[in-house]
Order: sequence, then C-alpha cells, then structure tokens
Amino acid sequence: MKVLKGGISEVNGFTFSAIECNIRYKDRLDYALIYSKQPCHAAGTFTTNKVCAAPVKLSRKNIDNPIHAILINATNANACTGATGMHNATSLIQDVAKKLQVTESSILMGSTGIIGHQLPVEKMLQSHDNLVNSLEQSKADDVAKAILTTDTIPKQVAYSFNTSKGNYNIGGIAKGSGMIAPNMATLLSYILTDAPIAKQTLTTSFKKIIGTTLNSITIDGDMSTNDTAIILAPIADEPLKSTDDIEAFEEALFRVLMDLAEMLVTDGEGVTKVVTINVINAKNDQDAVTCAKHIAESLLVKTAIFGNDPNWGRIACAAGYSGAEIVEDKLSIFFEKIALLKNGTPQPHDQQQLKNILQQEKYSVTIDLQLGKASASILTSDLTYDYVKINAEYST
Amino acid sequence: MKVLKGGISEVNGFTFSAIECNIRYKDRLDYALIYSKQPCHAAGTFTTNKVCAAPVKLSRKNIDNPIHAILINATNANACTGATGMHNATSLIQDVAKKLQVTESSILMGSTGIIGHQLPVEKMLQSHDNLVNSLEQSKADDVAKAILTTDTIPKQVAYSFNTSKGNYNIGGIAKGSGMIAPNMATLLSYILTDAPIAKQTLTTSFKKIIGTTLNSITIDGDMSTNDTAIILAPIADEPLKSTDDIEAFEEALFRVLMDLAEMLVTDGEGVTKVVTINVINAKNDQDAVTCAKHIAESLLVKTAIFGNDPNWGRIACAAGYSGAEIVEDKLSIFFEKIALLKNGTPQPHDQQQLKNILQQEKYSVTIDLQLGKASASILTSDLTYDYVKINAEYST
Repeated sequence: MKVLKGGISEVNGFTFSAIECNIRYKDRLDYALIYSKQPCHAAGTFTTNKVCAAPVKLSRKNIDNPIHAILINATNANACTGATGMHNATSLIQDVAKKLQVTESSILMGSTGIIGHQLPVEKMLQSHDNLVNSLEQSKADDVAKAILTTDTIPKQVAYSFNTSKGNYNIGGIAKGSGMIAPNMATLLSYILTDAPIAKQTLTTSFKKIIGTTLNSITIDGDMSTNDTAIILAPIADEPLKSTDDIEAFEEALFRVLMDLAEMLVTDGEGVTKVVTINVINAKNDQDAVTCAKHIAESLLVKTAIFGNDPNWGRIACAAGYSGAEIVEDKLSIFFEKIALLKNGTPQPHDQQQLKNILQQEKYSVTIDLQLGKASASILTSDLTYDYVKINAEYST
Repeated sequence: MKVLKGGISEVNGFTFSAIECNIRYKDRLDYALIYSKQPCHAAGTFTTNKVCAAPVKLSRKNIDNPIHAILINATNANACTGATGMHNATSLIQDVAKKLQVTESSILMGSTGIIGHQLPVEKMLQSHDNLVNSLEQSKADDVAKAILTTDTIPKQVAYSFNTSKGNYNIGGIAKGSGMIAPNMATLLSYILTDAPIAKQTLTTSFKKIIGTTLNSITIDGDMSTNDTAIILAPIADEPLKSTDDIEAFEEALFRVLMDLAEMLVTDGEGVTKVVTINVINAKNDQDAVTCAKHIAESLLVKTAIFGNDPNWGRIACAAGYSGAEIVEDKLSIFFEKIALLKNGTPQPHDQQQLKNILQQEKYSVTIDLQLGKASASILTSDLTYDYVKINAEYST
C-alpha cells in the first residue's frame, strides 16, 4: 500500500469540478460535482436522525442504482425545508442529469450547512453549465475545499494497493468539524476507487469498516441531519473475487477511512487535543461501545483534557452512568501505561510522567472493566473556548 | 403558603453547625452537621451511577432508620476511594454518633468535591467536638454555604403552609453547579420539615415531586457519583392524614424543590441563560422526556442559546436523533409564542420580536410533536466560555 500524493485525482475514471455559486457566502467554493463516465456501484451510510435532509432522502432512494455522479453543496444543509426543499433538490439533480446526459436516478446528492433555509435554486441552476463544463481529473482538491463548512483544512487521502489483477487506487475526501457523533461520523465523506468491486462486497466491506473508523469518532455528540458517507467503484464484468484481493481492498479502505476519521477529529471545532478512549474487557460489545461513547462525550472529561487535567474521577463517573455493566471494585483506568485507578483504588504514580502525557497532542486513555473480553475504541477531542465561540456565532 | 425569610432556620426542631476544617482548601466552611433531637423519618433519592461514593452507600443503608443527623463535607467527594474511603466515612459517622449520643445507624452522610482522593480523616475527627458543640438553630445559612463547591451563591428556601392541624414549615438547601443531569438533579439537597408526615407518604411524595423538579434540570448531562436528595420529617404518633393536608404538604414541597431547581440551573457553571424546553404532544411520556433531554443536553443547542442565536435547526436535529418518535412533517418549534417551524416547514416571523426573546435571561422553547398527548419540561442552560474555563481548571 502506498500513499498517492495527488490524492483522489489519481483514482482513475473520475473527474471533478467546484465553483463559487454564492449559495450563502461570497468568495468561496460552495458547489461541487464528482463524475464518472463509467457507471459505478455505490454503497452508503446515512444519518439515522429521524429529521433528515432532502439530499439524504434522495441519495437513499438512488444508492442501489448504477451511479454516475455526486452533486454536493456547502453552506446550506437543505434540512427541515419541507416539500419545497425536496422539490429544490430534485430540480437540481434533474438539471445536472440532463446536462451530463445520464439518468436522474444515477445521481447522488449531499448538502451541508445551516438547517432550515431554502436553497437559492435559480442561482444554482444557472451555474450548472459552468459546473458540468469545467469537470477535470485534476480538480479534486477544489472539491475537497468546496464541501467544507467550519473545517479549517480540506481532508483528502488516497492510497494504491496491489491485487492479483494489478494495482488499483482508492481515496476519499471528507468534511465535518461540528455535529460529529458516533453513529455516523462525518457530515459528508466520499470515497472513490478504480478497483472493480462487486456491489455486495462494496456494501459489506464499507458498512463493516465505517463502524470502526468514521463511526468511532466524536466531537460534540450531536448527530447531524445530513451525515452521509458514500463509496463508488466502477461496475465491471469481472470484479475482484479472491479472498486475498478483497483483503487488500479492505485494508486500503480501512486506511483511507481511518486517516479521514483522524483528520476530522484533529480539525474538530476548537480542538487542540485528540484522545483515544479504549474500553477493554467489557462484558459484551454493546457495553464496550456504550461505555467508551459516554466517556468520549462527557463535557467534564473533555474540558479536563483541554485543561491538561488528569481528572480520572470524571472518567470513572462517566463510565458509571453509561449504562454499561461496571463493578467499581474491578474498574481500572490508565493514561497511556500509567495506572491511576486499579480495581477501584487510586494508585500512586509519577506526576511528571503523567504531565508529559497530558501535554501531548495525542494520547490514549484505557478503561479496563475486567468483566469480559469485549473492547471498543473511540476517538474524541477536548472541549475548548473556541468550540463555544464557533458555535455561539455560527448562524448569526 | 408563605415564604419564610429566615430560611430553614425557621423549620422547628433542627439545629445546624458548619466549620472550616481545611479538608482541601483553607478559609472556607467545608464541614457541616444538621441535627434533630427528635428522630425523623427520612426519604431520599440517590445517584443511579454505578460508580458511587462511600457516603451514598452509607446513606442508602441507613435511609429507612429513624434519623437524627446528616453529616456533610464539601471539596472532597470520597468517591472512587475503595475500601479506605468506606472505612473513613464509617469512622466519621461513628464518632459523630458517639458525640451526639445517638446510634450510628441514625446518621446520613453527604460528600461533594473532587473524586479519587482520600478524606483527611484525622483532621475531620479532631474537629467533631467543635462541630457538635456549635449546633444552633440559627446557623442554617452557614450549612448552606459549607456544602458549596463551584456554586457562586448558597441556595436556600423555606415556606410555611396550613393544614387542619395548624401551620407547619418546610425548607431546603442545595448545592451543585456542574455534573448536573436529569435522573438525579443536584449533587446535594437537603429538605427539612417540622410537619409530621408518615414514612410511606414522605417517600411517595418525595419521589413523585423530585421527578418534575430536581430531576428535570440539566447543565452538562454528567450524572455525579454523589447525587443525593434527602428529606427529613419528625416521627410522630399522629401524622398528617387527610387528603387536603397531604396536598398542602406536597404543594409546599413542590415549591421548595422547584425553587431550588431553578436556583441550581441559574447558578450553573458559567450559565448566563436559563431556558425551559417543553416537549408537547409526544406519543408517550418516555418519548417526551427523551426528546426534551436530548435537546436540553445538545452542545450545539446550548452554544446557540449562549450566542442569542435562534438556531431552531439544531433543536430539530437533536429531536431527530433523540430516539423519540418524530414525524418530520408534523414537527413544530416555538420560541415563546413565535412559530419558527410548523409541520416541518420554516415560518416567516418578526425578527425583532424574536431577538427580544433571545436576549432575555429566561425564556421557553416548545417542541410540538403532534403525535399524542404526553409532555415533559426540562430546565437547561447555555454553554459558555466560563463553563469551559471552570472545568478545565477545576482540579489542577
């Protein structure tokens, strides 16, 4: 497996365009298109929020069709926009389909930004000629930029991998720095590969690997109305089949998704530290995830991380109210390798060594429940003044 | 019903003392005692956190005994302190019992403060003569102060109420400005009455009224290891019995608990605004509470409140992921009386009128699910720079 310095532009078969459409703000790329002349299999995971955006509803409907394109806009989520919002999304897809000379049902859509505002549909329709005519293989970086909201940097990564049928490429882009919670990780993430993967394999592999990557990060515990992660792979007569080849594909997919997950947390709103919360020896998988999630989302834990405060009491507290089975006398907590609590009893430890860990930008905390064999890891961040600032000022 | 200006000092039969014991900090009251010569019935609700403090375990054990006293310390929670922590709490109770000449089983204990540190037991034992000898009816204010941690003001309220057997008094104190979540509201709250209430009535009334008062507030969604609310009423041969008398008692108890709940949220860490989240016409009670709770705890909702931002999209989003049944086309959201979303469609509204509401220190947001007849209200607060500041700096 090798990193591709050109990012997803090096994944064969796809072209990209992104323009300034002034959807909500001026002087920024905000409208983007990803296109494949060859029809692709798609797999996707979407928000489980019962309030979900029009583009999510449309994409869910089309995801099992052969797919040619993904249309994406930032700065307006087209969520909670009623029948008008759905009508708008449909009009945009219809028009782009016509201009690309493909069927309407072969297009997926993603939107991110403020909730409850109607899209400026006329303006967007008028931009479609420009959007379609400027498609180029080299413009992937522009798309990675166009989909951002409060993110401070574009997130893109690509790898090549070997199979018995030769070298293939896979890469992805993602955006999302608030409204991030396990259960669908990012607002928007698009993965492209030029490897021929069967539809069923694509779906199975994507769902499995999303679980331990994009679905295992949290910034604020708010699950968005627009969360969407999609993968496209060219439809081919002879898809990869052998176990070794599928493993190579899955390994590369995991690397892409994990890299994007880490980039997302690192660039989370106001984030200065990224901490991996490992829960080990839980009674069962559900308990491991629940316990890790509650710790990762506790405001008191997150503010302590920000303050370089080894306040393991707050971690024990969050584990205790998580709903997971906890036996206080067995509970142990480690910062990296340093034990602060063992079998429910506080442990003496080297203060300087602990301080060194807390000052790192990345470290891990392990909670050993000693009740079984299940484990789970969640990537979390600190909660800072800047998170409050960004979110108190976002829509006004 | 009449407010008692003297607070719980006007509740007959109780004496109070509070001293500076230097448990963790100097120059502050941190150790307190509430005493009743006459044995009392007690009722209590405790944290449901599976990790809970030694004093919670002791109090749970003693709550059904005739009670003479409550011993309370601040600045150290005596939680996650293992067998030593339990031994320490027991030694303190034994010694106070001896000095008060009552049985050990007639004493309840409460602790609040940092988790995972052992109490300075020798120092505390040495202070017991002073603590017991300085008991006075007039010292309730000192107890209200001694139990505080990051609270900025003591919380105390008392009322008198009429019954067929004459006037009685009821009042309470509370502390708690972080680690506040529905499901047990405050770190510590003690309610005293001189009305003769039967044990069964006391338990039933207290549990019922706690649910809609102290258990319906949230500041950060973190449920503490030490949450304790206790009520004491003198054991009498002829307790109040008539429906009218019990109603008078319950009305006064509700007033005391609701006043304390509001004081707790208003004095929450860094809080500048208090917002009531009303969920109405939910399918069932569980849905109403779940939906209100998720909205009340959403960081994005809380930061928007801080920023005077009418970001109802974040409210719709939190309702959608709450797990409650939501039909997007029926969802309506009101700030006070102003509709911002009706049947899933954004509504035009008077911007200035909305701005005026958002600038108030207290207002209400109502979410109409239009799916049934159940409703729930939760009192929440904004999330501010100061919350982050206080909690990033608390233990270091």
